[in-house]
Amino acid sequence: MRFPVIGIIGKPHHQGAAETMLALREYLSARGHTVLVEDVCGRALHLPGGELVPIHSLGTQCQLVIVVGGDGSMLHAARVLSNFDIPVLGINRGHLGFLTDVSPVEFREKVTEVLEGHYSVEKRFLLAARVLRHEDPIASAEALNDIVLYPGEISKMIEFEVYVNDQFVYSQRSDGLIVATPTGSTAYALSAGGPIMHPSLDAVVLVPMFPHSLTARPIVLDSDSKIEIVIAATNRTTPQLSFDGQVHIKVQPGDAIVINKKPETLWLVHPQGHDYYHVLRNKLNWGSKL
Amino acid sequence: MRFPVIGIIGKPHHQGAAETMLALREYLSARGHTVLVEDVCGRALHLPGGELVPIHSLGTQCQLVIVVGGDGSMLHAARVLSNFDIPVLGINRGHLGFLTDVSPVEFREKVTEVLEGHYSVEKRFLLAARVLRHEDPIASAEALNDIVLYPGEISKMIEFEVYVNDQFVYSQRSDGLIVATPTGSTAYALSAGGPIMHPSLDAVVLVPMFPHSLTARPIVLDSDSKIEIVIAATNRTTPQLSFDGQVHIKVQPGDAIVINKKPETLWLVHPQGHDYYHVLRNKLNWGSKL
Amino acid sequence: MRFPVIGIIGKPHHQGAAETMLALREYLSARGHTVLVEDVCGRALHLPGGELVPIHSLGTQCQLVIVVGGDGSMLHAARVLSNFDIPVLGINRGHLGFLTDVSPVEFREKVTEVLEGHYSVEKRFLLAARVLRHEDPIASAEALNDIVLYPGEISKMIEFEVYVNDQFVYSQRSDGLIVATPTGSTAYALSAGGPIMHPSLDAVVLVPMFPHSLTARPIVLDSDSKIEIVIAATNRTTPQLSFDGQVHIKVQPGDAIVINKKPETLWLVHPQGHDYYHVLRNKLNWGSKL
Amino acid sequence: MRFPVIGIIGKPHHQGAAETMLALREYLSARGHTVLVEDVCGRALHLPGGELVPIHSLGTQCQLVIVVGGDGSMLHAARVLSNFDIPVLGINRGHLGFLTDVSPVEFREKVTEVLEGHYSVEKRFLLAARVLRHEDPIASAEALNDIVLYPGEISKMIEFEVYVNDQFVYSQRSDGLIVATPTGSTAYALSAGGPIMHPSLDAVVLVPMFPHSLTARPIVLDSDSKIEIVIAATNRTTPQLSFDGQVHIKVQPGDAIVINKKPETLWLVHPQGHDYYHVLRNKLNWGSKL
Repeated sequence: MRFPVIGIIGKPHHQGAAETMLALREYLSARGHTVLVEDVCGRALHLPGGELVPIHSLGTQCQLVIVVGGDGSMLHAARVLSNFDIPVLGINRGHLGFLTDVSPVEFREKVTEVLEGHYSVEKRFLLAARVLRHEDPIASAEALNDIVLYPGEISKMIEFEVYVNDQFVYSQRSDGLIVATPTGSTAYALSAGGPIMHPSLDAVVLVPMFPHSLTARPIVLDSDSKIEIVIAATNRTTPQLSFDGQVHIKVQPGDAIVINKKPETLWLVHPQGHDYYHVLRNKLNWGSKL
Repeated sequence: MRFPVIGIIGKPHHQGAAETMLALREYLSARGHTVLVEDVCGRALHLPGGELVPIHSLGTQCQLVIVVGGDGSMLHAARVLSNFDIPVLGINRGHLGFLTDVSPVEFREKVTEVLEGHYSVEKRFLLAARVLRHEDPIASAEALNDIVLYPGEISKMIEFEVYVNDQFVYSQRSDGLIVATPTGSTAYALSAGGPIMHPSLDAVVLVPMFPHSLTARPIVLDSDSKIEIVIAATNRTTPQLSFDGQVHIKVQPGDAIVINKKPETLWLVHPQGHDYYHVLRNKLNWGSKL
Repeated sequence: MRFPVIGIIGKPHHQGAAETMLALREYLSARGHTVLVEDVCGRALHLPGGELVPIHSLGTQCQLVIVVGGDGSMLHAARVLSNFDIPVLGINRGHLGFLTDVSPVEFREKVTEVLEGHYSVEKRFLLAARVLRHEDPIASAEALNDIVLYPGEISKMIEFEVYVNDQFVYSQRSDGLIVATPTGSTAYALSAGGPIMHPSLDAVVLVPMFPHSLTARPIVLDSDSKIEIVIAATNRTTPQLSFDGQVHIKVQPGDAIVINKKPETLWLVHPQGHDYYHVLRNKLNWGSKL
Repeated sequence: MRFPVIGIIGKPHHQGAAETMLALREYLSARGHTVLVEDVCGRALHLPGGELVPIHSLGTQCQLVIVVGGDGSMLHAARVLSNFDIPVLGINRGHLGFLTDVSPVEFREKVTEVLEGHYSVEKRFLLAARVLRHEDPIASAEALNDIVLYPGEISKMIEFEVYVNDQFVYSQRSDGLIVATPTGSTAYALSAGGPIMHPSLDAVVLVPMFPHSLTARPIVLDSDSKIEIVIAATNRTTPQLSFDGQVHIKVQPGDAIVINKKPETLWLVHPQGHDYYHVLRNKLNWGSKL
């Protein structure tokens, strides 16, 4: 039997997600799979304690994890589950659904297809950042979509320098910088004028946010590049790093942020017939003409 | 002796380029190299016929070719010389000089460095396009910077479909489409809102030109992708393909244009200390703040 | 009786437009109005010669003209009818319908409302350009949407200088320049990165097309400004001016193009309840969120 | 004698500004003018108390005020001095100097020219905003450059509706909205993709900040428009309004922000020969070509 133990995680307090998680749990059990539910989620669903485990145990004990929610739920799960060689499937219960591509109304057919081995797996890489203060690492975090440098205070600009593989690229005065993966290229970076990058691409994009210069442009780099952002010592506020908009680290003038590709990747499962461009056209309203 | 036979090619009727080519020829001969000059160029310089050869013979008979001119001269040379495993060095006698990075005032030092083995070589890939009519190839050409689909008539839009690896991407009504390499990403594609792509990246970008849709965006793809543009049968004009702005092919409604990475690459030589980001900052006026 | 004589003009060879024009003619006659039909149109519809008049006679003999077609039909009619103080109503039989805001399925109700005096009139100004060669006027034309300067040859850039009220603004190397009215700001200028301008605004916008500079930006000027574009003598091709994409004038290096607001305006009629922002949201897909 | 009483205000703790203010005070006194200095400034300069007055008294007691500093100093002064019919001249001691166009090295010549009556006066309008909570005005402020709606918390989006003259324009989910005057069109709004607007234009522009929609665009409106922004009740944070980046008001979900043109305007003085386009080219690096 494929996937004897399957994990479930999702938006805990969202009614639609809750319904789908309960129906999914029942369906998988009826098919004979052992089901484990992420504990925060499971408590919100009032499930028996025996099948609840912390999220990282989903990674070690399951052969498949199903995420029920929006892209936000997948981003959250991905940052943990990417540490384990485990396929992850998303059922959409949120807004966009670039990452969670199974519709809840057809989850039984689609999940069945996957359980019967009819699926594709796509590797999506993450970015890992370390914050260095006087060359000592003081904090670190990861992102599947993007790492964003924000000013510490609204309506203040921030000055910083960017180095790639130890080569100076530019100094910039702006509202911040977005460092996005291909996965994140259809999220915040797109609003800021970045290009769409196909998920198969080993690339990251640096997108300046309202730069105080008319010549700044997004730049696409090899994802194996070491990207270093040095917060100018002259800044008077304490800027903030955001990871997928979910994890936040305060940095200080003089700090260096070193960003690399995370060695481990997310294994994103798609049911058969998944078509990235179809999703793009659909979500971004492409093909719609004036 | 490194590079016993060296080829020279450049802007034939540009006074500055002519002076540099003559000085370079003399300098290389004095160092004991055999010098061959591309024949169109050589005739314009009134050189003896014995050392003049067609451009492709530079590829077969030399161990190094030096291009004297602007990026336009290098684009022209690259489309031919990329067929041969031969390093190519550029001396700038034009406007921009992204590709021709040796300044003419210091060409002796820089060329000497290269001749003594102090240089780096960078591989720059090209794009090759075939035009299919009723599935038969009717024309083909290559580009180092970009392949641009233009309407056949000024002020007319063009309708076409794009497929990548046989998957439908979008249909578009616009003034055309730019397909650019990383090398070309700092040229026309940049004016049209495309991102800068680092030359080491194995990627191409598709940049729509004045699309008749507010949701069209540049998309970056793996350079190993097969990109197919199908000219809608409904177009009333005969669109035009331009390769590096130098070679032009007329296409017709119903034609398909298939673009792939050219298997052979340009070997671009840089003197020591070449720094891509320095060139970027310099040429694009980066670092200049309001 | 309001509007005793009503003119009809439209897309002559478009089946839908033809049907609506015939139904409209019948409807107006039945209500007791004298109907005149623009002659090109009328001949295509095989109408009796007696009621056919040239377009400018619609302006002198009617109290209202109804345009049946797309925005293109309205642009064509507007350039002539703006010479007469006559209200113009549009019935949409084309793609977009920013200017022709009556839907053909409800034309009877909406036209009746207008005939009964329930309507608003909006003044839309036009631009008038004269081409000067050695200071002599050699050609002139007008536009309701935009005047676009194109290069004479595809894939060639064009160099020109811009003066506003005799003050030098900039020189530019680009694929051309769009000078748009508020009416035209939702057309080609929008694709090229220009802002939307409310139709009530007395302003024009200059939008550079793929400028060979990263610092060029659209600039909005008072519509009473005199805008002068001087084609650099160094251009090797003969650029082209397009008026609403419908009228074309070839210009030469050294020519000056002087653009002013046309003193006469189009009187655009809207049925009651017309809401510009509703049209914007609808046509530009605003309010649609990711 | 023109301008018998002249006021001085500037950056109090900036060495260059202090030097120029002292030299200017001495120069004006020597010419026989009575000089009043804004009190915060004057205390920082250790000037005798007798000539120090609060900023609004500069407005009532002087016939001319000279601002020494950057555009920030002028923005600050303008919001107060626009309440009085008084000409204001700027001497640049900051970065940009769109508003303070006299260079400190030539201040004596330029100020003399102005004192002798050789100058032009330009009216620059301001925006006035009132915040309504349950229809009661709870706060108000003004801006010469721009009013910016920011989210209350970094990395959170904000949802709001925009109405113009009581007509619904759009709802938007974004990082905020910039409402800029022509004066502010070359500041923050320009970084966010807004157009440049000539200072003589009676227009405001609404520029969305990283909108969660690909079809949002800047829109230019008549400056006499009433612009209303309604903060959606669903927002979980308390957004912030910033006026010229200098004055900040916290707003709440459900609040309405009503923006109108301020009836009084700033009278900006320019020495003879002032050329807006020259300043633009200079500051924005126009004319610089690739």
